[in-house]
Parts: sequence; structure tokens; C-alpha cells
Amino acid sequence: MEEQLETVGRAFVDHYYHLFDTDRNSLASLYQPTSMLTFEGQKILGGENITGKLNGLPFEQCKHVVSTIDSQPSSFAGGIVVFVSGSLQLLGEDHPLRFSQMFHLVPSIQGVLFVQNDMFRLNYG
Amino acid sequence: MEEQLETVGRAFVDHYYHLFDTDRNSLASLYQPTSMLTFEGQKILGGENITGKLNGLPFEQCKHVVSTIDSQPSSFAGGIVVFVSGSLQLLGEDHPLRFSQMFHLVPSIQGVLFVQNDMFRLNYG
Repeated sequence: MEEQLETVGRAFVDHYYHLFDTDRNSLASLYQPTSMLTFEGQKILGGENITGKLNGLPFEQCKHVVSTIDSQPSSFAGGIVVFVSGSLQLLGEDHPLRFSQMFHLVPSIQGVLFVQNDMFRLNYG
Repeated sequence: MEEQLETVGRAFVDHYYHLFDTDRNSLASLYQPTSMLTFEGQKILGGENITGKLNGLPFEQCKHVVSTIDSQPSSFAGGIVVFVSGSLQLLGEDHPLRFSQMFHLVPSIQGVLFVQNDMFRLNYG
């Protein structure tokens, strides 16, 4: 069970950043109308607005490299909280940006995990 | 409502690190038997074990300085997810350590928020 949770968390993270780095539009499939993103302190509500925000970020190509993934069951039945640290390489930039991100995944009515809470921060210093 | 959530998140974070830096034992009041901590990848279950872990950390005195706090309502009724970045100054160390931490706060049966999920990572690089 414990191991399964880690596997699900890792599979989600791999899938999420793969979509982000290759076809950002398709991230829409991972959010729902109730989803929330806080991106560098800016709050965005709803999958459509979130996808709009992510698509509108001022870089075309990027590559996420994950350093750590931690997963725990949330108190919401079937939910998982996932905590990621890593670096983000932007095309044409010399130095990758360090970031931390947390996801709260909860099952939809159809039983598929979606992102209810998403918080992203660059790590400076 | 939105503003209130931010206020609760900030008040919790201030309270948590104040206790951590001045009376680490008293953090026990913020956890429950169901609580989980992942500390630098190590998973610890239950308030008693968590307090034991935090008390056993190999430094006596420390000071947390918070850089950012992001809060969102979780899908758990009355729950809040809080995402923190900051730095940790250890006594006798020249350079503070950057860290990220997330808390999932949920109301107890008595209606008091406690830490259900806690994940802590130092940020290297």
C-alpha cells in the first residue's frame, strides 16, 4: 500500500512534467473546474484558467528535471499529497531554475485522480 | 473567505515555527495520531513519533525565517493546504539552509486544525 502510493505519486509526476514539457495544452486533462493553482503567489481557479496560465508562461520550451518526490495519503479518501523538488531548464537559458511544487490529487467521480491543489514556487538563493 | 484563509495559513505558520524555534516539545499539540511527516524523505507516522523525530534533530537552537506562504482550501471540509518557503539558521552555522515545507491542516473532531500531512525538504543548489 505504502509502496503503491509512492508508485502512483511518481507516475503522476513523470506524466505531469512530460505533458508540461512536450504538449502543455494537454495538461487540461489533469485539472477539473474546482482545481486551484497558486503560481508564484498568483491564485488561479479552475482547470480552464489554469491551463490558460500555464500556456501563457513566457517561455516556449522547457524541461523539468525532478530531484525528489514525496507522497502521502491525504485525509480525503483516495487522495494523495505529492511534494516535488527539481529544476526547470528554459530554452536558451544557461542556468536551470530550482523549484518546489506540491499537488493534492483527489479521485474524480469517475475514480480518476485529478489535481485539486497545485502550488508552485521557484527557490531563490 | 479567501482573505481569511490566507490569514489562517499565515497564523499557523508563524505559530508553528515559533514553537519549533523556542519550545520544540510543544509541537506535539499540533499533531494527532493519524499525522504523517516526511522529513528529507523519511516517513514518520503519528504525533508522538513526529515530535520524537523533531526533538531528536541534531541541532539545539535554530531560527526559521519565512519567505513565502501560499494557502488554499483543500477538498477536505475545512482543510487548508499551506506551502512555505524559507530559510533555517542553525546556531553556529554561517549560512542559512533554504527549505520548502507543505502542511495539510484538517479540523479535528473538536474543530481545531491539526497537521495531517507535513513534508519538509531542504533546497540544495
